[in-house]
Amino acid sequence: MRRIHVIGIGAGDPDQLTLQAVKALRDTDVFFVLDKGEAKADLVELRRDMLRTHVPEGTYRVVRARDPERDRSAGGAAYSPAVEDWRRARADIYERLIAEELGEDETGAFLVWGDPALYDSTLGILEEVLARGTVEFTYDVVPGISSVSALVARHRTGLNRVARPVQITTGRRLAEGFPEGVDDVVVMLDAHQVFRQYADQDIDIYWGACIGTPDEVLVSGPIAEAAPRIERLRAELRERKGWVMDTYLLRRHPKE
Amino acid sequence: MRRIHVIGIGAGDPDQLTLQAVKALRDTDVFFVLDKGEAKADLVELRRDMLRTHVPEGTYRVVRARDPERDRSAGGAAYSPAVEDWRRARADIYERLIAEELGEDETGAFLVWGDPALYDSTLGILEEVLARGTVEFTYDVVPGISSVSALVARHRTGLNRVARPVQITTGRRLAEGFPEGVDDVVVMLDAHQVFRQYADQDIDIYWGACIGTPDEVLVSGPIAEAAPRIERLRAELRERKGWVMDTYLLRRHPKE
Repeated sequence: MRRIHVIGIGAGDPDQLTLQAVKALRDTDVFFVLDKGEAKADLVELRRDMLRTHVPEGTYRVVRARDPERDRSAGGAAYSPAVEDWRRARADIYERLIAEELGEDETGAFLVWGDPALYDSTLGILEEVLARGTVEFTYDVVPGISSVSALVARHRTGLNRVARPVQITTGRRLAEGFPEGVDDVVVMLDAHQVFRQYADQDIDIYWGACIGTPDEVLVSGPIAEAAPRIERLRAELRERKGWVMDTYLLRRHPKE
Repeated sequence: MRRIHVIGIGAGDPDQLTLQAVKALRDTDVFFVLDKGEAKADLVELRRDMLRTHVPEGTYRVVRARDPERDRSAGGAAYSPAVEDWRRARADIYERLIAEELGEDETGAFLVWGDPALYDSTLGILEEVLARGTVEFTYDVVPGISSVSALVARHRTGLNRVARPVQITTGRRLAEGFPEGVDDVVVMLDAHQVFRQYADQDIDIYWGACIGTPDEVLVSGPIAEAAPRIERLRAELRERKGWVMDTYLLRRHPKE
């Protein structure tokens, strides 16, 4: 039976790998690397370095495939169908990789930045491939340090305040309003710096980009004060690297 | 200057340590271990095993202190003052440990189960000690695999569904009502199995106790079906070990 490891590899610092992840890497015959194109070539390179560091040469193969383009132009109500098309295209690729590139008694692995449980599509896509019934395999999940954990560790703050909840959401959702019933909100996948919408409120932001890498930048403070600095640093990173991965925590001061 | 590492050591599986955590362990002169009494002696033992495995003998000291008892009888509105008293008592202990047990050029460490960012008081207490101004030190935080990440990895499911938010909250909060605006809710610190309150709703539970340890138990399914099994397994664990650490994800099926 084919086996698959879905391995969380941390948020960018190679030392965020767990011992369990290192064991899973060494247990793998075939690594599937989905390439998002030139812009994120340094992410592909970081993963290659991890393999070179932790897995004896000659004990594994790397199979690359091109990640399907996602139609991001279709916004608003069209969001879910566009995502569905993209997931199906990805499932086609995963299905082919597992069926054609992995021997019947071999172990494959997908390396996932952060934690496979948080805003990552790999688990859903593997379930979709299994549901098709064309190729059989088992899989397990190795949890990873999420960009959320990495962010607050670098800011030396907690995610929640004492006995209170925290919500993790997307930039798109935050644009629709500050979530109900929580004062601590982590925002991922925000390409539009939606936090600026709340600059007139008594909210602190803990922002970070490229966390755990040599390009790391951190900014914290009241949104109104921090926003111009974040805009500038984010634009500089984007200019220099061609892309930027950032996350932030919003902490609202509860009304007395 | 005294230095402190606050090290997330994962949710129970010693292989959930990150490489960064192992480096921080090896960089430490004095480990501060707060002992919660006989009931959780196996947790203290697990930490000792980690040190034995990863840090050369003779290169470190272990200083134990007794964790102050928390007055859990004071429920409801009295919750916050009781927590405050307990934090102050803890800060007294931390202050003494750092001032008296750590040399001026030494590095100390607190080992935190899971991730120091999630429902853990260590960072807040260190800030309180610093604010007192009686002993100077710097500190950093090593993120860990939280019990939340470990739970969903073992269930091979995501925390959030596509493009949707997830909230992390406490049993106490869940007892007040299902959180607004989210259908995926992770519950920690629930000693009363509050999920049973929602057994009449179309909600799946993904529950786990002692995750990543030899005692691990996992149950998933609609709450109504899963609850009796969870109750039984939880009672058995509690009977056998004297305590139980569990976490769960509730996943509500949105109305069509």
